[in-house]
Amino acid sequence: MSQQPGQVAPAGRKPINIAVDAMGGDYAPREIVKGAVLGARAYNVSILLVGNPEQIQAELGKHDLTGVQYEIIPAADVIEMDEAATAVRKKKEASINVTSRCVRDGLAQGMVAAGSTGAAMASASLYIGRIEGVTRVAIGVLMPSISKPCLLIDAGANADCTPEMMTQFAVMGNVYMHNVHQVASPRVGLLNIGEEEHKGNTLAKSTFEVLKTDSRFRFIGNVEGRDLFKGSVDVAVSDGFSGNIALKSAEGIMRMFKTLLEVEIRKSVKAKLGYLLMKDALQGAGRHADPEERGGALLLGVNGVCVISHGGSRARGIMNAIRVAVESVEADVLGKITHQLQ
Amino acid sequence: MSQQPGQVAPAGRKPINIAVDAMGGDYAPREIVKGAVLGARAYNVSILLVGNPEQIQAELGKHDLTGVQYEIIPAADVIEMDEAATAVRKKKEASINVTSRCVRDGLAQGMVAAGSTGAAMASASLYIGRIEGVTRVAIGVLMPSISKPCLLIDAGANADCTPEMMTQFAVMGNVYMHNVHQVASPRVGLLNIGEEEHKGNTLAKSTFEVLKTDSRFRFIGNVEGRDLFKGSVDVAVSDGFSGNIALKSAEGIMRMFKTLLEVEIRKSVKAKLGYLLMKDALQGAGRHADPEERGGALLLGVNGVCVISHGGSRARGIMNAIRVAVESVEADVLGKITHQLQ
Repeated sequence: MSQQPGQVAPAGRKPINIAVDAMGGDYAPREIVKGAVLGARAYNVSILLVGNPEQIQAELGKHDLTGVQYEIIPAADVIEMDEAATAVRKKKEASINVTSRCVRDGLAQGMVAAGSTGAAMASASLYIGRIEGVTRVAIGVLMPSISKPCLLIDAGANADCTPEMMTQFAVMGNVYMHNVHQVASPRVGLLNIGEEEHKGNTLAKSTFEVLKTDSRFRFIGNVEGRDLFKGSVDVAVSDGFSGNIALKSAEGIMRMFKTLLEVEIRKSVKAKLGYLLMKDALQGAGRHADPEERGGALLLGVNGVCVISHGGSRARGIMNAIRVAVESVEADVLGKITHQLQ
Repeated sequence: MSQQPGQVAPAGRKPINIAVDAMGGDYAPREIVKGAVLGARAYNVSILLVGNPEQIQAELGKHDLTGVQYEIIPAADVIEMDEAATAVRKKKEASINVTSRCVRDGLAQGMVAAGSTGAAMASASLYIGRIEGVTRVAIGVLMPSISKPCLLIDAGANADCTPEMMTQFAVMGNVYMHNVHQVASPRVGLLNIGEEEHKGNTLAKSTFEVLKTDSRFRFIGNVEGRDLFKGSVDVAVSDGFSGNIALKSAEGIMRMFKTLLEVEIRKSVKAKLGYLLMKDALQGAGRHADPEERGGALLLGVNGVCVISHGGSRARGIMNAIRVAVESVEADVLGKITHQLQ
């Protein structure tokens, strides 16, 4: 897509509006507004900035807005990162709720939020609702791999699952990877603790039986935690409990390694000099492994495109989340999931 | 402990014998025998090398054996890495079974194996049996952290668990970290997908209720996947399914990062030069994050010390596994678990 400012949408493409919760996330509204401006320009879409108008206006004033299409949608309240998802029902005028209603009311085809995942999920489910036929909304997260990323689904929305729910996750993940990531025939695997068919807990064993007979996707069998990063599977189906633990363990050890390396580098002048020379290589590998680069989590099954960016997202993360939302809208992921689940 | 060759055991310490399956693992018998020689000398213990006598003798011939106490215990058969754990019952004379019987018969107080985890677990359970009162044997793995390591238990032995089983894991992990790792009052956490009390799947919620009322350890509540690496918890209790996924995801992303970094380094002369200068720092951080350095997995609940080293272990990994076995014997982990579970 064009990165030039002021361009109109490509011929034949319908105008796309993305609603962005400008008040959610650790660095809101500063980094959110900055990311929205970058995203609007990079992907040639119109952004609805939802939140406190004065604060949003003040942030917008810091940027060159030539050719940037945007609108400010006022919202009187905010849900803080540490509030429970139940706040969604209490604070009706919270920015995340107003953002969800922009999608419900057709003002936007997609939304991006960087606040609490639980709140965004609750709000989108409450106001936008599920696609017809979808039993449960699931979180899909693109995990980095040696080659193409792997979509882990569910990464935390549903702590307790059934084989039927997990089959829907497989369908939704398959549609997403095929249509947005252009994987011709996605390899769908079941996250398990061994490769053999009889492995796993009761839920995994039952799910294996259901997945292997479903013709809507190409089931390749069980995959292990380490396979997520090998490029050998495109969609890893998991219950939300194990999936979340896989995601957070991987994030956690990478963060630990980064800290340890910083400590080691500080110990010697030689290492400091080496770091200066190796910085690009380290950052290249680090970016590849960084979830922010992939734009955040997808809420699949909601009847509108919804991307949840990391709470600690900066402008680059928000811009990438907007890219993911735009790609999902353009590929008509919702329509295709609806069709598959009919 | 002394690293000098030829020393006798410290005054007052009973002689310790450790049985080592010389035929298990990707680099057996070469690296196993080498590691056993290193371990015997470093920790001043006697090693029973179990396997094909000619092959073991040939490997021993490559090393200086001055002051190394060892014995060769013949075993006629071998269980390969890719055989199912059921092979344990069929191949009675397999080296892993002979190794287990060395512990059962009191020839050794502990055993080290680097072959298939499933086979080692099945063999130890079959021949040595469980500590009285233990419902299920569990795998404990020391996860690296910013500061002290955290024992993840169960890391894969029991795919389906009950709250009662997980409480025993907490007891065993607590005994181990207190007595072997000298943690005065280990912080015991429940691996979950959120910190709040009501979080998690049905099993995690029920387990929380049981753990919080148990006075045999200090329960600090729920911990998330990323907390394993922060130094904020000493024992992370998990069902074997989620625990295994946490372990393998963490291992997998680290391996991916290493490969990506190698690719980046090869791209430029500057990065190559930087790598030469930074090599020590990178290896320092890498070693800290490497499971082999911590000596492998512990089989807790078996009525004998049993350490399972990574299938890909080299001499250093085996030496470290022997250290872990010796420490467990010296700290009388078995006696203390028995006492706690009475």
